[in-house]
Order: sequence, then C-alpha cells, then structure tokens
Amino acid sequence: MKIIIVGATGTLGKKVSFAFSQKHEIIRVGKTSGDVQADITNEISIKEMFDKIGSFDALISTAGQGPFAPLNQMTGDNFKNGLMDKLLGQINLVLIGQHYINNNGSFTLTSGILSEHPVAMGSALSTINGGLNSFVHAASAEFTNGVRINAVSPNVVEDSPSYFDSFPGEIPVTMEKVVKAFEKSVLGIITGKVIEVY
Amino acid sequence: MKIIIVGATGTLGKKVSFAFSQKHEIIRVGKTSGDVQADITNEISIKEMFDKIGSFDALISTAGQGPFAPLNQMTGDNFKNGLMDKLLGQINLVLIGQHYINNNGSFTLTSGILSEHPVAMGSALSTINGGLNSFVHAASAEFTNGVRINAVSPNVVEDSPSYFDSFPGEIPVTMEKVVKAFEKSVLGIITGKVIEVY
Repeated sequence: MKIIIVGATGTLGKKVSFAFSQKHEIIRVGKTSGDVQADITNEISIKEMFDKIGSFDALISTAGQGPFAPLNQMTGDNFKNGLMDKLLGQINLVLIGQHYINNNGSFTLTSGILSEHPVAMGSALSTINGGLNSFVHAASAEFTNGVRINAVSPNVVEDSPSYFDSFPGEIPVTMEKVVKAFEKSVLGIITGKVIEVY
Repeated sequence: MKIIIVGATGTLGKKVSFAFSQKHEIIRVGKTSGDVQADITNEISIKEMFDKIGSFDALISTAGQGPFAPLNQMTGDNFKNGLMDKLLGQINLVLIGQHYINNNGSFTLTSGILSEHPVAMGSALSTINGGLNSFVHAASAEFTNGVRINAVSPNVVEDSPSYFDSFPGEIPVTMEKVVKAFEKSVLGIITGKVIEVY
C-alpha cells in the first residue's frame, strides 16, 4: 500500500511512519523535512505535494497546530490561525487529495480528546477537534468508490510530558495504542468513525 | 434583562426577537438592518457594536452562513468562507463580548443538526456546527462571574420549506420549539450545553 504521512517528522508522525514502513511504501511529508515538503495552511503547496506524489492508497495526517490560551485572553486572530492550520489544513488535505486517491483508499486525520473533555486554555483546540470529528462523519457519507475517512482522537500521549500538567486527571496513553488506532483506520474497513484513544 | 440578538432580522431571529421582546429590552442587530448594524466576519465591526450597546445581560446569535456544496466540488475557499462566518463569526461575538457582558450573563449561539446527522452537500456546515458545539463545552468551563454559554442546535425548521428536500427523513421542527430552546438557555441556569431541537 502506498501511504502518505503528513506530519511524519513530528512526535506522533515518526512513530506512525515507523510502524507502517515495516510493510508498506511510505511517503513522509513535513513542512521543511521528509521526502516531500508541504505547508498544510497553503492550498497551492498541498496541490504541489499531490502532483509530486501522484495517486496513493492512504493518507494519514498527524499535522496541524492550534493556540493554547486562556479564554479571556484569546483573540480572534489566535483562534483564526488555529482554524486555518489544524482544522482547515487537514480538511484541505482531503478536499484536494480526494482527486488523487485510489479507489478503496482512505484518509485518517488527527483530532483529539479536547473536543469532548475541555481543559483550561484549550477552547480553540476543542473547537478544532470537534469540527474535525463532524467533518469525518459528513465526508464519509459523501465519498464514492469505496474511499473511507476516519479521525484518530488521542488523549495526551506519554511522549509529550510537557503537556501532562495541562491535562489534569488524564492518564497519558502509550504511543503504541495511538499507532494501533491509525492501523485500525488504514488497514481496517471502518469509515466515518472517531477512534478515541483515551 | 438587556438582550442583544445578532441575526435578529433573519427567519429565526425575527421569531426569537418577538418572543423575548414581550418581557425584555431587546437590541436587534443585523448586517444592514436592525437597531445596530454589525458584520460578524469583521472583528472591528463586532467591537464597534459592543461599544455602541455597552454592557448587556444576554447575547443570542442566530447569525452566520456556511456553503452547501457536494464534497467532490467543495473548495478550500468555500470551506474557509463558512469557517470565517458561522463558526469564527459567532465565536468572535463571545471572545469580544466577554469583555462587555454583565456578571451572570449568558451567550447562546446557533449550531445545527448537521454536526451529528450529515446530509449531502453539508460537510462544511457539519464541521462548523461540530466546532461550535465543542467551543460551547470548552468556553463554559473557563467563564467566571457566573457567565454561561450554550448552543441551540435545530433541525430544519418548518418556516424554511426550501430546505426540506435537503434533509430527507427529518420532520421539520416548529419555530415555537426552537424559540423555547433559546428561552431555556437565556432564562434558565444551564451552561455548556447543546440544546438539540430535533
């Protein structure tokens, strides 16, 4: 299977890439590193990425950022930057990628626990993750030719200890468990699902 | 109670405004009509609106639009316009309005059934509504001074027959039922809730 991994050089992307590379052809995409470079906030850059790579069987996105700030200090500009990056950036990978994907291919995006379980300073990421989850429900119902789409929604992960204090009460999940969720989406048959790794 | 209704001149806003005007002071806000004008896609315009109105007890938003288009024809620009309007526009009413609202005041936004029950051509509105619902969860947990926030999530309404064919299988809900949901949010005690009117 030919699998594009956008965000392949990040904390999560590295582990996901390693796992899939054992049995599949992987194209690692990063903003400034990887096999191919792309900026997901730029539609032209995304289009160029797909033109370079050509058709593919699966796209995994572990890319995208959103601002962490107290609600009473959150500005529209901060909020907008997050919407344009982790939310619209990942959605544009799908909107553009749908014209390059092989029949029976799949998209797997990354949302996160904040859609359902808010934390202090997380209102933008809650919004982004909630939007992504609903997008996946909606897009799955419109795809044809067997194309599937899911989101992996992880809790804080054990490899990111700097975030632990921001998620009081949460038990950090292992990267192995998160990687398995991506395998469920890419190698399984489900579509329109939010795979919670809490 | 001094209540700002943004979108007061729309199909839903008119009914909501009439209901609350029986017992409360209403400031009707429209893009080009109403007591005060504001464009929710423009932060400066929102700020000017609040400067004109001053402090308030409740803000209701029935404003905001999103594109309806088949997924395979949806462009990033279409999608972005919706995110900037119904999603970020309503969120900016809260981000800016939080600095003008009285203690124990409330915000009530409008999302919609597509967050959970997608229809053809609705992927952008699903995303927007899902984002709004998660924002309300998150923001409610960060507010202080008794400030509350909820979203009303209506099904297709009986006053919009041109949309009926886009929502197969749905029984259009009465405007009375939708108006009551806004009353539950503004006059009740709940916060962080998505009030479904399905």
